[in-house]
Amino acid sequence: LGANDWPLILTASGTGAMEAAFLNAVSPGSSIAVFHAGRYGERWMDFARAHQIHTYEITAPYGHTFDLEEVKQLLTRAVSLKAVFFQDSESSTGTRHRTQELVALIQRHQPQALIVVDAMTGLGVHPLSIQSGIDVLITGSQKSMGIHPGLSLLGLSERYLNQLHELHLPRVYFDLRKEFEAQQKQVTAWTPAIGLMGALGTSLDRIHGLGGAQVLQANANLLANSLRAALDHWGIPLFSKYPGDSVTAFMLPEAGAFIQRLKEEENLVVASGQGVLEGQILRIGHLGFISANDMAATITGIERTFLKIGASYPHGALAKAQSFLDQAPRL
Amino acid sequence: LGANDWPLILTASGTGAMEAAFLNAVSPGSSIAVFHAGRYGERWMDFARAHQIHTYEITAPYGHTFDLEEVKQLLTRAVSLKAVFFQDSESSTGTRHRTQELVALIQRHQPQALIVVDAMTGLGVHPLSIQSGIDVLITGSQKSMGIHPGLSLLGLSERYLNQLHELHLPRVYFDLRKEFEAQQKQVTAWTPAIGLMGALGTSLDRIHGLGGAQVLQANANLLANSLRAALDHWGIPLFSKYPGDSVTAFMLPEAGAFIQRLKEEENLVVASGQGVLEGQILRIGHLGFISANDMAATITGIERTFLKIGASYPHGALAKAQSFLDQAPRL
Repeated sequence: LGANDWPLILTASGTGAMEAAFLNAVSPGSSIAVFHAGRYGERWMDFARAHQIHTYEITAPYGHTFDLEEVKQLLTRAVSLKAVFFQDSESSTGTRHRTQELVALIQRHQPQALIVVDAMTGLGVHPLSIQSGIDVLITGSQKSMGIHPGLSLLGLSERYLNQLHELHLPRVYFDLRKEFEAQQKQVTAWTPAIGLMGALGTSLDRIHGLGGAQVLQANANLLANSLRAALDHWGIPLFSKYPGDSVTAFMLPEAGAFIQRLKEEENLVVASGQGVLEGQILRIGHLGFISANDMAATITGIERTFLKIGASYPHGALAKAQSFLDQAPRL
Repeated sequence: LGANDWPLILTASGTGAMEAAFLNAVSPGSSIAVFHAGRYGERWMDFARAHQIHTYEITAPYGHTFDLEEVKQLLTRAVSLKAVFFQDSESSTGTRHRTQELVALIQRHQPQALIVVDAMTGLGVHPLSIQSGIDVLITGSQKSMGIHPGLSLLGLSERYLNQLHELHLPRVYFDLRKEFEAQQKQVTAWTPAIGLMGALGTSLDRIHGLGGAQVLQANANLLANSLRAALDHWGIPLFSKYPGDSVTAFMLPEAGAFIQRLKEEENLVVASGQGVLEGQILRIGHLGFISANDMAATITGIERTFLKIGASYPHGALAKAQSFLDQAPRL
């Protein structure tokens, strides 16, 4: 995460960590900005509405990202913002938002604003660091770290930590002042999910042994490129106009039934979309410990299913994917 | 838990579930009452202060419970209360509060008040049920159910569920409306700690196979009685004036060093107190899958340590404890 201090670990899944970051950044009467273009980014609006915080909003259609000129204009005309919230990787659409360009615009036009980035599926996939001007980077145990869900991690900037003792929104379980104080002493404020803590340590040792997060990043990039090459071979466009490397989304006719066949007949677990995208798209993950061989199995299983249902996509995508898979590291 | 519906399961430890019960019971401008006499009961005051809720408070010294006449007078003179909060088992002092007497007083004098009982260490030890007039009963995965921490369960009354859609305090992750709606469909509102969910199922099957929660209750009662008999033999008084069956607390000179010896030399893990009681008391648990043989090992290890440090407590407490241990069920 690139922070000077150890990240804070919460016993809660990602939405809990997002709300914790929100409650500890915003004060009653603050104005904030939220950029969102998918189901996960929309959560920031849930917090803003529930906690009744005045919010400037920028949206984009699902699969798109934010217009930087629109962002610049909003940041210029807005009152002084307490914080800005967005996703790095919007995994509901397979989109990577332009985090560093957004950070640069916020730093130029709203230098006082805390920059809170949900990197649940971005961390370990795209290069991201508190050192690059982000104040909060959020991730979870079940993404790049590859263990069960139940823990979230928040990397925090010095600036965020220095502001923790200002008046913020009411909270106890998600009071990061208490967590910071406790975790400085190597304990947690509240009873932690101790089994997951042990698993997290093992996973981090494993990532360290592989050569660090950059090896996972390179792997995710090669796997994403391999699937993009296969999709190109099949003539299927990517759902996202700004595809990230954590998950690749694409539309397919009768996607729900196709996913069911993959699960039952090929032993492949692939996600569909959420909300309006349910049954419309397939989403295939590349992050964490998903290997080149897993990806080859997935592409093969998709082609076997194409054959079975008599779909007319050209066969043989694996040959196009393989040049990327051959370069992927051993996990 | 005795509720008509399945309990709601949250990915959070006990304090999170307590705050969830609080946020979904109380509205801005509500008045509430909190009864507390230990570190866990004090958490209700943390929520009341953080969320700025007008609170009537009844306290008792650590190891004591609430004076029922004082409770009655407070309930009589208070304005109409939205909710009342207290612990069933205050495990920081080994005290069992008089839950059913408190419920009866609240029902008589503040019939509209929601009754929220933290039964983290009370459930599976003392008979407790939503059917007895309690509106929220809270427990956690790491207590009687004997698995790792990380999940909390809330049993809710029909009355509490019917009031969920009234205006309450701001919350998203802990919004029990969303959880109820999702869990009615056998999913959770947010990503759950899925590994712990599986373990919870296994643990509940095991408890069912033993004959249900009443077998765990009988076991805890016999184990608590066995340790009380041993303490009586040693001439050591109980710390609590109202001892519960989930944990037995007693003072011992240099308790911290004694606990350290138990751990290093006897392989026995025993808790000390918290806050002002740290290093003052020993706390020995009886709840969940702690067996008669575990208890015998604990009593023996304590006596072996008495011998080693040259303490003058009479030897042979196991003979007094054994009549209780012999009756304990097979776990």
